[in-house]
Amino acid sequence: MSEINKLKILNDPIYGFISITNPLVYDLIQHPYFQRLRRISQMGMSYLVYPGAHHTRFHHALGCMHIMQKTIQVLKFKGIAISDEEENALSIAILLHDIGHGPFSHAMEHSIVERVNHEAISLRFMDKLNEEFDGKLSLAIKIFKGEYHRKFMLQLISSQMDMDRMDYLKRDSFYSGVAEGNINSERLIQMMNVYNDILVIEEKGIYSVEKFLVARRLMYWQAYLHKTSVAAEMILTKILKRAKELTQKGEILLCSKPLQFFLQQKIELDDFNDQVLETFSRLDDFDVMSAIKEWQYHDDFILGELSRMIINRDLPKIRLRSEKVEKKTVENLKAELMKVYNINEKETDYFVFKGKIKNQAYNKSGEPIHILKKDRTVEEVAAASDQLNLKALSKPVTKYYICFPKVLLEKAVI
Amino acid sequence: MSEINKLKILNDPIYGFISITNPLVYDLIQHPYFQRLRRISQMGMSYLVYPGAHHTRFHHALGCMHIMQKTIQVLKFKGIAISDEEENALSIAILLHDIGHGPFSHAMEHSIVERVNHEAISLRFMDKLNEEFDGKLSLAIKIFKGEYHRKFMLQLISSQMDMDRMDYLKRDSFYSGVAEGNINSERLIQMMNVYNDILVIEEKGIYSVEKFLVARRLMYWQAYLHKTSVAAEMILTKILKRAKELTQKGEILLCSKPLQFFLQQKIELDDFNDQVLETFSRLDDFDVMSAIKEWQYHDDFILGELSRMIINRDLPKIRLRSEKVEKKTVENLKAELMKVYNINEKETDYFVFKGKIKNQAYNKSGEPIHILKKDRTVEEVAAASDQLNLKALSKPVTKYYICFPKVLLEKAVI
Amino acid sequence: MSEINKLKILNDPIYGFISITNPLVYDLIQHPYFQRLRRISQMGMSYLVYPGAHHTRFHHALGCMHIMQKTIQVLKFKGIAISDEEENALSIAILLHDIGHGPFSHAMEHSIVERVNHEAISLRFMDKLNEEFDGKLSLAIKIFKGEYHRKFMLQLISSQMDMDRMDYLKRDSFYSGVAEGNINSERLIQMMNVYNDILVIEEKGIYSVEKFLVARRLMYWQAYLHKTSVAAEMILTKILKRAKELTQKGEILLCSKPLQFFLQQKIELDDFNDQVLETFSRLDDFDVMSAIKEWQYHDDFILGELSRMIINRDLPKIRLRSEKVEKKTVENLKAELMKVYNINEKETDYFVFKGKIKNQAYNKSGEPIHILKKDRTVEEVAAASDQLNLKALSKPVTKYYICFPKVLLEKAVI
Amino acid sequence: MSEINKLKILNDPIYGFISITNPLVYDLIQHPYFQRLRRISQMGMSYLVYPGAHHTRFHHALGCMHIMQKTIQVLKFKGIAISDEEENALSIAILLHDIGHGPFSHAMEHSIVERVNHEAISLRFMDKLNEEFDGKLSLAIKIFKGEYHRKFMLQLISSQMDMDRMDYLKRDSFYSGVAEGNINSERLIQMMNVYNDILVIEEKGIYSVEKFLVARRLMYWQAYLHKTSVAAEMILTKILKRAKELTQKGEILLCSKPLQFFLQQKIELDDFNDQVLETFSRLDDFDVMSAIKEWQYHDDFILGELSRMIINRDLPKIRLRSEKVEKKTVENLKAELMKVYNINEKETDYFVFKGKIKNQAYNKSGEPIHILKKDRTVEEVAAASDQLNLKALSKPVTKYYICFPKVLLEKAVI
Repeated sequence: MSEINKLKILNDPIYGFISITNPLVYDLIQHPYFQRLRRISQMGMSYLVYPGAHHTRFHHALGCMHIMQKTIQVLKFKGIAISDEEENALSIAILLHDIGHGPFSHAMEHSIVERVNHEAISLRFMDKLNEEFDGKLSLAIKIFKGEYHRKFMLQLISSQMDMDRMDYLKRDSFYSGVAEGNINSERLIQMMNVYNDILVIEEKGIYSVEKFLVARRLMYWQAYLHKTSVAAEMILTKILKRAKELTQKGEILLCSKPLQFFLQQKIELDDFNDQVLETFSRLDDFDVMSAIKEWQYHDDFILGELSRMIINRDLPKIRLRSEKVEKKTVENLKAELMKVYNINEKETDYFVFKGKIKNQAYNKSGEPIHILKKDRTVEEVAAASDQLNLKALSKPVTKYYICFPKVLLEKAVI
Repeated sequence: MSEINKLKILNDPIYGFISITNPLVYDLIQHPYFQRLRRISQMGMSYLVYPGAHHTRFHHALGCMHIMQKTIQVLKFKGIAISDEEENALSIAILLHDIGHGPFSHAMEHSIVERVNHEAISLRFMDKLNEEFDGKLSLAIKIFKGEYHRKFMLQLISSQMDMDRMDYLKRDSFYSGVAEGNINSERLIQMMNVYNDILVIEEKGIYSVEKFLVARRLMYWQAYLHKTSVAAEMILTKILKRAKELTQKGEILLCSKPLQFFLQQKIELDDFNDQVLETFSRLDDFDVMSAIKEWQYHDDFILGELSRMIINRDLPKIRLRSEKVEKKTVENLKAELMKVYNINEKETDYFVFKGKIKNQAYNKSGEPIHILKKDRTVEEVAAASDQLNLKALSKPVTKYYICFPKVLLEKAVI
Repeated sequence: MSEINKLKILNDPIYGFISITNPLVYDLIQHPYFQRLRRISQMGMSYLVYPGAHHTRFHHALGCMHIMQKTIQVLKFKGIAISDEEENALSIAILLHDIGHGPFSHAMEHSIVERVNHEAISLRFMDKLNEEFDGKLSLAIKIFKGEYHRKFMLQLISSQMDMDRMDYLKRDSFYSGVAEGNINSERLIQMMNVYNDILVIEEKGIYSVEKFLVARRLMYWQAYLHKTSVAAEMILTKILKRAKELTQKGEILLCSKPLQFFLQQKIELDDFNDQVLETFSRLDDFDVMSAIKEWQYHDDFILGELSRMIINRDLPKIRLRSEKVEKKTVENLKAELMKVYNINEKETDYFVFKGKIKNQAYNKSGEPIHILKKDRTVEEVAAASDQLNLKALSKPVTKYYICFPKVLLEKAVI
Repeated sequence: MSEINKLKILNDPIYGFISITNPLVYDLIQHPYFQRLRRISQMGMSYLVYPGAHHTRFHHALGCMHIMQKTIQVLKFKGIAISDEEENALSIAILLHDIGHGPFSHAMEHSIVERVNHEAISLRFMDKLNEEFDGKLSLAIKIFKGEYHRKFMLQLISSQMDMDRMDYLKRDSFYSGVAEGNINSERLIQMMNVYNDILVIEEKGIYSVEKFLVARRLMYWQAYLHKTSVAAEMILTKILKRAKELTQKGEILLCSKPLQFFLQQKIELDDFNDQVLETFSRLDDFDVMSAIKEWQYHDDFILGELSRMIINRDLPKIRLRSEKVEKKTVENLKAELMKVYNINEKETDYFVFKGKIKNQAYNKSGEPIHILKKDRTVEEVAAASDQLNLKALSKPVTKYYICFPKVLLEKAVI
C-alpha cells in the first residue's frame, strides 16, 4: 500500500473530523496495543449514572492528538519554531500517553495490580513499540519522560492544562450530557503561546482559564466523584479483591485467561517483562465484565452478591458528608449486617465501608498554568487573577462517604 | 421505598433530561431484563467506522420513551383524548419494543438463532414481565400487537415515522458524528396530530418529513450500510457460523455458558420457553466479544483468522458496485485464496463472498406517513408532495458488494 | 378571529420553539408598544465587538416568558400551587419587565433622560396597557411591584437568579459567540423549588449555581464590560450630550421628531405623562443611529467627529488599569489634544475621559440565591458552598479606564 | 501601527473564530464601504417571522472569507497549487462579492433603483476600492469577473455550491432557528477538490451534496419564501414605490438625504458615477426603516397605512396556491376594498396583489456541481446520483400567492 493511502479522516462528533496525516501515527493506531483501547471505557462505571458515557480511551487518545495538532498550528503561526520531527513526536507522545490504562484502571490498581500505575505501563508499551518501529518513537519518549530540553513540550502533554485534560473534559461532558463540564478548548488553544520555553496563556485568556478550572471542578463533583459512580467503583474493587482472595486460596474462577493470570500472580512494576506486558495487553473491559456476569452465579455469597449489584445496577446506598464518618457508625452497620447476611465480621468489609473523595480543581504545585501578561512578564495564574476566585479553586475540598447495602436502610439511622 | 422516590431524572446529551415519572416504568427499567440492554450496543460493529458509536439499546429505549411523552403532550394539547392508562401503556410499549434484541442482532439472526426475529422475542419478554407485574402490561402489549382499537397508537410505536425511528436517527447521528442524519424531531412532533384515528403530520410540516426521509436515507448509506460496517458484520456472522459448526462437530469452544447453550442447541421460535428466554436474557455483547477475543488463539485457522480480523480491526476489503458481482469473479478469488491460505474450496466461503445491500428511505407499503392538508383531507406523503423528490425517496436502491481478504489485493483484478 | 387562532409558535434557535398559548399574552405581543422592542438591540453597541450580537429586546422578552412557563411547570410538578391566574400574571410580568427600555438605554440614561430609569418607565407602560386591557394586567403589576403576598413570584421576575438573567446570559452568549457565558438554564430550572414562600435551589444544584455565577462574571468582563464596548457606549453618550447641548443653544439638529423632542425637553420621571410616554414609545435604535449617520456631516467638529467614530467603527483607544487613572495623565492628554484638534479645554472632555467599571457576579444584599439543603433548612448560597469560591464571586472587582483618540497614540506615554 | 497589529480574531458563533491575517483584508474591512454592511440585514424582513434573524451582510461576508480560507487549505493539502497572491485575491473577492447590496435589496431593486442589480454595484465598489488601494485588488476583480484563466476560482465565488451559499445557508439557519437548513459545510469542504481546473466534490461526498441541496430547498420554502416574509417584502416594495410616486409629484417626504436622492432621481446603472456611488454607500436599513417610521403619520392614506403594517407587524393576509390566482378573484377583492377604504381602483394595487414564487434547489444550467468519481471521471451531480432524487431537486417548483388586507377577511371567499 502506498503511503498516501494511509491518510485517514475520522468522524468525531466533538471536533467534526480528525485527520491522520502521518504514516507512522497511522501504523501506531493500527497496532493491536492501540486498537485494544477501543475496548476500554474512558469513564469506567460512570455509565451507570450517565447512560451515554460509553466512549472509549481510543476515542479520547485520537481527540488529544487532534487538539495537539491544532495547538502546534497556533504556536507555529505565532512564530514558535517546531520542527516536523518534533511535531510528530508530540503527536505520538500524546496519542500514547494513556496506552497503559487497563480496564477500570482505578479499581484494578487498588485490587489486582497494586502499586503499578498506568503511566509506568504506558512507558513500557512505548518502549516496546519503539523496538518494533526501529527507534522512531525515541523523541516522543524523550519528551514524555521530561528529558527533552524544550520544556513546554512536556507541558503540552502533562500539566494543569494539557491536551489530555482539554480533551477529556470536553469529551466526558459531551457523552455524559453534563453540560457544566463543557470547555471552550478552541479559545484556550488560540490563547496559548510559548515564552522563555514555558507554555503560557495570553492575558486576555485569563477568564477562559478560570472557566476551564471551574468546569473541571464541576466535572469532578458531578461525574468523576458522583457518589453513585464512587459506590459502583468501590464494589468493583471489592469484587476483584474477593476474586483474587478466592483464587489465592486455590479456587479456579471462571474468567478469561489474561484475567486468570493477574488473579493468580502478584504482579508489581518490576515484574512487567515482555510476556506480562503481552498478557496485560489482552485485558480489557470485556474480560472484567464477562467474569462478573459469570460470578453472579458463583456459590461464594460475597462474590455473587457483589457481582449482581453491578450487573443489575442494584447498587448499595452511599451517603456523603463534610465530616469524617465515625467509627461507631460503621461498627453498628456491620453488626447489623452480620445478622442479616449471616456473615462474619471480616466479611462485612465487603459491604460496609467508608472513605473520602478529594477535589482540587487546580494544583499549582504540579505544572502550574502560566499567564503571559501584556508587559511580557509571566505569572502563575492564581497570582495573576484579579480576585480570590482562582485561589479558592486551588484549595482542595474533601468529602467523606459511607457505603452500605440497601437492606440496612430501615435498620440504620444514617 | 415510597413511590415518590421512584421519580428519577436522567441526563441525556440529546434531550437534556429524561424524566421517569411513573413507578411501573421505573420498576421495568430496574428489571435485569431491561438493565441488560446497557450491555447491547445500538449500532453493532459501527464503532469500527465511527469510534463514538458506543451508545446502547438501553439509552435508545429511554430516548424513545421520552419523545413518546412529548408527543402525547402535543396530541393532548391539540385535543386528542388520551387517558392516563393509555399514556402509561404507550410509554411501556415503546420502552420495551426492542427488549428482544440480542447482541449484534443481525449477525446472530443469520447464524445462531435462525428464523427468530427480535420482535417475536420482545413479545416473549413482555409476556413474561406481564406475569411478574400482575397483568399491568396488558394494554401495552395489546397496543404493541396492533390489537387495540385506536390505530394511531400502534403507529406511534411502529410506522414509517414512529418514535423508534425518530430517536435512533437522532441518537445514531449524534454519537457517530454523521451530522447528515440529524433530524428535527422537536418540529416533527409539534406537527403531529390524529385525524380519523390515523397519525398525521400537518401540512406545514411536509418539508420536515422530507428532511426526515432524506436524513434516513443518508444514515443508511453513511452509517448502517457503510461498506466497512457491512464487512465487519459479515465477518462476525461468519465467526458465529464457524463456531456453531465446530460446536456441532463436538468441539467445546471457550465461551460463556449462555453462548455455549446457543451454539449447542438449534433454537427456533417455538423453543423459546421460559428457560430459553432466561438464558437468552444473559447474552449480551460481552459474551460475544469475549469469546471472539479468546477464539483469536484457537487452532482452527478459520475461527482464529476471522476473530483476529475483528479484534485488531484488520478487516477484509469490500467493494461496492451498482451491478451484481459476477460468479466468475468470486470463483477466481476463491481459487487464488485456496493457494494462499492452503484451505479447501468450501472453506473459502468464510473469506470470499458477495451480497447486496438495499436502501429504501420510505416504503409506503408499510405504515405510510400521512399528511393532514389544510382542507382537512388526508393524503399519503409521497402523493401530497409538490414534486418528484418524495417519490424518488420511495424507490429502493440496491448495491452489490464483494468481500475478500487483503492478501488477495495484489492478485485480484477487482 | 377566534381565540384559537391566537395560538402561535415561534422559532427560537435557543429553546427550539416558544409557544404563545394565552390570548391576552398574544394581544400584548401584538401591541405597538411591544412590537417596538423589535427595534431595540439587547446588547447596545456590543455588535461593534461581536458582530453576531444584533438580537433584540423583543426576542429576549419572549425567551424570558418561555422559561417562566417551564419553571412554573416544574414548580407545579413539585406540588407548588400556582393558579391559572397567577400563571398568566407571571408570564405577563416577565414579558413586560423590560418594556421601558429605550434605545441604548445606558447611554440615554446618562445623557437625555437623566434620572429616569427604565424600570420606572416599564411600570408606566404596564399601567397604560392595563387601562387599555380593562385591568387584566393588575395581578401582573402587583407581582412586579412586589406587592403580592407570595414573595417567590417576585423572585422569579427580579432576583439574583431570575428568568431575566437566565435568558439574557444564554441569549447574549449564543448570539455573540462568547461560549463562556453559556449556562445550563434547563438544569437550573429543574433544581428550582419553593420553600416557605422563598424561591430556592435544591442542594444538588449548587454547582450549577456556581457555574451560573461564574458565567455571569465572565460575560461581564468579556462582553458587557469589554473595553471596546465601553468606549463605544461612552462615545455614544458624548454624542447625545453634545446634541442636547447644541439643541439647548437653539440649533435644530436633523433627526426624527421623537428624538428632537427629547433633545429639546428636560424630561424627568414626573414629566412622563401619557403624551411623553407615547413619544418615548416611538424612540428606538433607528432614531438614534439615523441621527448619528446624519450628524457625521454636521459642521460642529465635535458632533461630526464623534459620530464618524461610531459609524465607521473608528473608535478611540481605551486602556484598562487596576488602579485609578491619575488626574495628571488626563490633563497631559487633554493639553496635547487642544493643540492637535484646535479645541478648547472644555471641549476636550468629549474625547479624553476616564472612568471605572465594576463587576460583581453575585450580590447577596440584593435578592440572594437560597439553597434548600437536604435537611430541609434554607441557606444563602455563598454560606452554603463548600469553599471560598462563591464568597470570591460576591466580591466586587473594579477596573479603571482612560479613553483618548488614536491621534494621541504616538504622543501619549500611556 | 505595525502590520502585525492588524492581525485580528473575531468571535463567530458558527465557526468559533474568524481570523484576519492579511493587512489588506484588514484595511478593506475597516473601510466605511464595508463597515456599512453592519447596517444591512442579511435576511431583510424575515425577522418579522423569525425574531432571531437580525444578522448582517457584514457578518456573512466575514463568514464567507473564513470558509474560503478553510477551502484553500484543503485544496492545497490535496496538492492544488495556489499562490499567496491568488489566495489573497480569493479572500478579497469573496469578502466583497456582496458589497453592492443596498438595504432590503430585493424591494429596492423593484422600486427605487430599477434595473440595477447588486452584482454590478459590487463591481463598482471594487473598482473604486482598487483605485484607493493602488491596484492591489486587480487580481480579485479579475477572478470575480470570470476573466482569470483558472476557472475553479470563479466557481469558489459563484456557482451552485460556492462559499456564499455555504455560509448563508448555515448562518441563516443558525440565526433564524430553522434547523432544517443547517448544512455540514465542514464535510463539504473536506470533499472538495480541483480536477482539470474544475471545482469538484469527491464521490464519497455525494450524499452531503444531496443534503446540501435539500437543505437549500427547505430554507427557500421555510425562510426566504415564507409567505409572511413575502408579504412583508411586497408591502415594503409598495411603500417605496408610493414614496417615489409622491416624490415625483413634487412632495418632499421626511427621510434621510441619501434616500431623498434616490426617490428624486431615476438612477440606472449607467448613472452610477462616483458621486452616486458615494450616496448609495450612505444608504442602509436605518434610512429605510426610519423613513417608514416617520411615514406612518403621513397624511397620504396609502403611504401611512402600508407603513403602519410594517412597523406594527400588522401584515396583510397572504394565501399560497399551486395554481395561478384567477384575475376575477383579484378584481372582486379590489372592488370590495374600494368601498372599505374609499380609494380608487388604481390605488387598490397597493393592497391587493398576486404573484408567484419559484424554488429550484439546483439549477444545472448555472455553474453545476461536479462529482469526481473514483475512476477519475467527472460527472454532473444529478447525472452521477444513484436515483431520481437529485433530478427531482433540479425541477423548479412554482407557487402562486394572493395578498389582501385583513379587513377583507370576512368578505372574501378565498
